[in-house]
Amino acid sequence: MSKRIGVDLGGTTAKLGVVNDQNEIVERKVIPTDKSKTFEETIAILSQGILEMGDVGIVGFGVPSSLKPVGDIVIHANNLGWKNKDLRGELKKRLGSVPIFIANDADSAAVGEYFQGAGQGCQSMLMLTLGTGVGGGFIYQSRLYRGGNGCGFEPGHMIVQQDGVVCSCGLHGCLEAYCSATAIIREVTACKKSQVLQEMIAENDGKANARMLFDAVRQNDTYAKSILEKYVHTLAIGIGSLTTILRPEIVVIGGGVSGAGDLLFEPLREEVKRTTFSYDVIGGAAIIPAALGNDAGIIGAALLDRVLI
Amino acid sequence: MSKRIGVDLGGTTAKLGVVNDQNEIVERKVIPTDKSKTFEETIAILSQGILEMGDVGIVGFGVPSSLKPVGDIVIHANNLGWKNKDLRGELKKRLGSVPIFIANDADSAAVGEYFQGAGQGCQSMLMLTLGTGVGGGFIYQSRLYRGGNGCGFEPGHMIVQQDGVVCSCGLHGCLEAYCSATAIIREVTACKKSQVLQEMIAENDGKANARMLFDAVRQNDTYAKSILEKYVHTLAIGIGSLTTILRPEIVVIGGGVSGAGDLLFEPLREEVKRTTFSYDVIGGAAIIPAALGNDAGIIGAALLDRVLI
Repeated sequence: MSKRIGVDLGGTTAKLGVVNDQNEIVERKVIPTDKSKTFEETIAILSQGILEMGDVGIVGFGVPSSLKPVGDIVIHANNLGWKNKDLRGELKKRLGSVPIFIANDADSAAVGEYFQGAGQGCQSMLMLTLGTGVGGGFIYQSRLYRGGNGCGFEPGHMIVQQDGVVCSCGLHGCLEAYCSATAIIREVTACKKSQVLQEMIAENDGKANARMLFDAVRQNDTYAKSILEKYVHTLAIGIGSLTTILRPEIVVIGGGVSGAGDLLFEPLREEVKRTTFSYDVIGGAAIIPAALGNDAGIIGAALLDRVLI
Repeated sequence: MSKRIGVDLGGTTAKLGVVNDQNEIVERKVIPTDKSKTFEETIAILSQGILEMGDVGIVGFGVPSSLKPVGDIVIHANNLGWKNKDLRGELKKRLGSVPIFIANDADSAAVGEYFQGAGQGCQSMLMLTLGTGVGGGFIYQSRLYRGGNGCGFEPGHMIVQQDGVVCSCGLHGCLEAYCSATAIIREVTACKKSQVLQEMIAENDGKANARMLFDAVRQNDTYAKSILEKYVHTLAIGIGSLTTILRPEIVVIGGGVSGAGDLLFEPLREEVKRTTFSYDVIGGAAIIPAALGNDAGIIGAALLDRVLI
């Protein structure tokens, strides 16, 4: 049988995987990517890597960009240095008649969790990825939701605090500006009062990371607990607003920050009850951790044909 | 030919209309509703009114409540005193085999604007209704969007300001708490510094209304202009966030506040450019006034079969 291949395309590597009928990755390949290469060069290298896997039946791509649906134009993949690139057209030149499916990388991860991870068995699922940024994907009526104009949605840039903290996108008060790992690092770094946190940073050559927050909370550090409490509150507001608009059956949380486990999920579940419109009556969504880690993007990309109309 | 009837159900009246093949209302009827009547009594009166219109082919209802999709259960229609009522079941008892379609009233209004009003010709449209509350409906891929669990969405209860003004729903900082006519009345009433506004209130037996704000702005009142500026800013943030999630082709604004015309729409269109993620690149949505006024709900209700799956 011909192979179903998923490609999770990032700024430093493209992770390729062959996915079998049980939605498991049975063969892997990693191809370095490099912003200094041209778009055409990168596609040539990727296509060669795909074709070398042999007997290619279908290929799906998760791409770190918004996409224009007609022709699957990459609008702006900053990590790859691509702007307004005709990804489908360029891939077609190299891959010929192989069916190609393309989606945003966070969307692809959501599709992976939906079929093989935390979202199995539901019909609608919101996934939020709490990493360097805040990304997400939404499965609606068993299909990948791409928004009215087809360009996908960006839950990280919903504003939760008007005139709030400046976000990487230039707006003020986006969910991403409060709930990304980057936001945690900002708060940890700025928290000079916490001896616990500042010692951790010093021991790590002066570099803070998000894990330090949770380690300090485990050590019962008051300042860290206060940062976490605010973090959970804002994330709950974001989830509450998204639930009020999207009404997913479940909310799956992935990305590095979700690795904190119960320390994050237990207070978050409680707080969401207080920040979601009509939580009891209309029914709030269960909040559960993602199950597949980095494999979600590969598996989801390989299965995109099942959720794209 | 048998008649297509739309019912816009409210707390004081039910507005009925027969809609022809050109989506125009060709026959009207108004039936008083009354919270003191039981659910069963109200349905009996409504059904009789419908059947008396003669030759009923199809009936659609716009209801002021969230709905549970299986069986179309009215979750809570506060204006009618209905809680967890089996609207479809009760109507079926009275209307027999007539096909019945049920949706939220704001959703029905959006459907009306989509087919016959401001949304004609587009495939996705967000409508926001700025009245006593803030309601809305979303047309996605030419269908009425009802959210993952089918209960519809409530854009008015998206939080735009964490820990902000208390909303009628009990949450803090909802869009409705800043952008409803009720919110304008609150600000106008509280603006003791504005002699212009306070005189208008005094002349109206001490009662403020939203129109006064726009009248005062036309008179160049500095305080009114400041209230309007903040109002537009917050509304733009709400529209920006909703656009980032839903990606409608157009945003239609209805409800009493939209009657302010250019005084509202011109600054709003400018402000939305500053509050929407990637406005220029992904493409912001055009913002246009609703066209049908109160008829939108009747026309939309009559056409629900075309947008409900």
